[in-house]
Amino acid sequence: MLMSYETSLELLKAHIKPYEKVEKIALTQCLGRILAQNIKAPQNQPEFPISAMDGYALKFDEQDKPLRVLGTTPAGKMPEFKVESGTCVKTFTGSLMSEGSDTLVPVENVELKEGQIYIKEAVKKGFAVRKVGESYQKGELLLAKGTKLDYSEIALLAELGFFHISVFVRPVVGVLSSGSEIKDLGEILENPAQIRSSNHIALANLAQKLGCEARVFPLLKDEEKLTQSTLENALKTCDILITTGGVSMGDFDFLKKAVREYEVIIDKVDIKPGRHIKIAQFEEKFILALPGFPYSAMVMFNLYARELLNAWLLQPKDYVCKAFLQGVYKRKSPHLEFVACNVEFQNGRIVANLKGKKEGSSAIINNLNHKAALMIVPKESEILENESLVEVIFMP
Amino acid sequence: MLMSYETSLELLKAHIKPYEKVEKIALTQCLGRILAQNIKAPQNQPEFPISAMDGYALKFDEQDKPLRVLGTTPAGKMPEFKVESGTCVKTFTGSLMSEGSDTLVPVENVELKEGQIYIKEAVKKGFAVRKVGESYQKGELLLAKGTKLDYSEIALLAELGFFHISVFVRPVVGVLSSGSEIKDLGEILENPAQIRSSNHIALANLAQKLGCEARVFPLLKDEEKLTQSTLENALKTCDILITTGGVSMGDFDFLKKAVREYEVIIDKVDIKPGRHIKIAQFEEKFILALPGFPYSAMVMFNLYARELLNAWLLQPKDYVCKAFLQGVYKRKSPHLEFVACNVEFQNGRIVANLKGKKEGSSAIINNLNHKAALMIVPKESEILENESLVEVIFMP
Repeated sequence: MLMSYETSLELLKAHIKPYEKVEKIALTQCLGRILAQNIKAPQNQPEFPISAMDGYALKFDEQDKPLRVLGTTPAGKMPEFKVESGTCVKTFTGSLMSEGSDTLVPVENVELKEGQIYIKEAVKKGFAVRKVGESYQKGELLLAKGTKLDYSEIALLAELGFFHISVFVRPVVGVLSSGSEIKDLGEILENPAQIRSSNHIALANLAQKLGCEARVFPLLKDEEKLTQSTLENALKTCDILITTGGVSMGDFDFLKKAVREYEVIIDKVDIKPGRHIKIAQFEEKFILALPGFPYSAMVMFNLYARELLNAWLLQPKDYVCKAFLQGVYKRKSPHLEFVACNVEFQNGRIVANLKGKKEGSSAIINNLNHKAALMIVPKESEILENESLVEVIFMP
Repeated sequence: MLMSYETSLELLKAHIKPYEKVEKIALTQCLGRILAQNIKAPQNQPEFPISAMDGYALKFDEQDKPLRVLGTTPAGKMPEFKVESGTCVKTFTGSLMSEGSDTLVPVENVELKEGQIYIKEAVKKGFAVRKVGESYQKGELLLAKGTKLDYSEIALLAELGFFHISVFVRPVVGVLSSGSEIKDLGEILENPAQIRSSNHIALANLAQKLGCEARVFPLLKDEEKLTQSTLENALKTCDILITTGGVSMGDFDFLKKAVREYEVIIDKVDIKPGRHIKIAQFEEKFILALPGFPYSAMVMFNLYARELLNAWLLQPKDYVCKAFLQGVYKRKSPHLEFVACNVEFQNGRIVANLKGKKEGSSAIINNLNHKAALMIVPKESEILENESLVEVIFMP
């Protein structure tokens, strides 16, 4: 009996040790990187009351009388004036509020005549004043270790004064595609039995999208001796080595044999595509031997390599959700199936459908085009009914 | 009266000319780039019937008798044998099917004895044979101009034999942040009235995420003469120049004046945040003068720069959807509001909520952290009720 998908994930997770490779890089290079430390607010933000508009800083209860303008506080300068009764200070967006003031009356609400302002339209107490700690308060946890640094997290780190930041080193994912029938990018096909390799570039791009450094190895021919030594060599420079092809029931499936020289954790799983997957470990490195058909390889990468990377890089599994199926799906195999589908947002609902998806083998690359997701067909479901809730997995 | 948001978008779109900058780059560098040509299938894929498993190629109606194995067809090699009555050919995943065969019986279903196979479990006609044109048929439009090249589109292009591909040149987005109170990354604050600039790095990262080349200019002080010449100079090397700060009602808002030297398309819009936005055009270039508060600047970038880039790069506006509001929202201003929110997927429903979002000015950067989206509060809605359908915009 084949191992269930759930068991395979549990087994894999049980073999994962914490990833502790950290480096410090410039904030300008941080987009998409994973924070390797907690970030707490070292002080209140803002630290002092700040004007949020252009206008006059004054005492709230003095809006009914003319107020003498003591002077101005340009942004970036310390206020030179103290607001006493009967006075105000011209204050700009981003300027500190003057001592003694509690409210900002915008320039539009005011008439200025001979150095005095007359307030045409009063505002409420504290108007347009950024309160101390409005953005965050001293000691507040702002970004937790494991946060993926996006544009606004990086902006926040800039505001906090960081320039150099600790992130996880990108795990190195090597891709080694095998098969005597495959030719590399730019190579000529010599006969109609040859095809062009697409797995290596697809998986390298997937790895990059998941925050890894991708290393593409030269294509590997189906030769037994070569296979073992190439695998060994490739493993030296990777944290995860992904191979494609050579793992099923063929006479030339030498990768299967080579992988079995390591500590095999998973050998075949009750899923479609990707049944023949093998996962082995060597020290803290992993080898994922995936089938050669591109759809299988890309889906397996998403199911297994991503799980591994999530654990290492502390990423949540937030790419799985429920959707309403549009149409009926009848299972194609006795296994747990992962079927390419479209996911759309319609009036507050998440829907999945198979519009434009082709039926056939796991060689159909184009079924994953146009932001396809994967629909899970549970083993107990012979048919997924129209409008039933199904589980979908977004690709990276 | 302020211009409505809808009118401002229409006006902007009316000024956009097609973007025709195309370059040819290696497929290995294409991730996230936008295709500048249509891609049609030059031939059927596969061109010939191919085996999808390891097994024996034979005639469907001869599964009830022993069949002599003529030889093998390794993947990548042309078949050497023709299947006549009473014979079969050992055939591997990815191998061409031999002439005369129509079905592949997997190795698991067969017993091999003295050069003959005995089929223990018959399969249906055409089993495990990839049909001609299964993936796509000759002439089929596979990828349209404007497709964003993701991992599987790139895999498809590799399969099709492309190595060098036509994509749109990344538009150059310049970011020029202004304000005498802001200091750059790594600079020391000289007094508590100064703050660290975050807009330039946030907007540069947003621009990158939208497929642009970002150019960050040195920070600009609030000095009138400097402002005009800096703007002019910066514009020379950008397709879009984004400025931040200096556009509201302050005495030191020189950017406002400088921008008005160009053809102003939009000057203030009835929205919050970002009311003071100005958009001007110079030849085919655009200047977007955004307010200086970071939340405003980031949101405005998403609303306007993204619209411009979408038009140039033929991208769909697929980042707007409806969601069910969890909780009640009471509007804070008389304007159309864009409020930072969380969007979650719950049991097939898209929900929006304001958990953890801080109330206050548009200076609060951290409200856009953790994959925040924007909830639109229409002008006619005083209150958005719990469970009502609201419109949300995903950030890039």
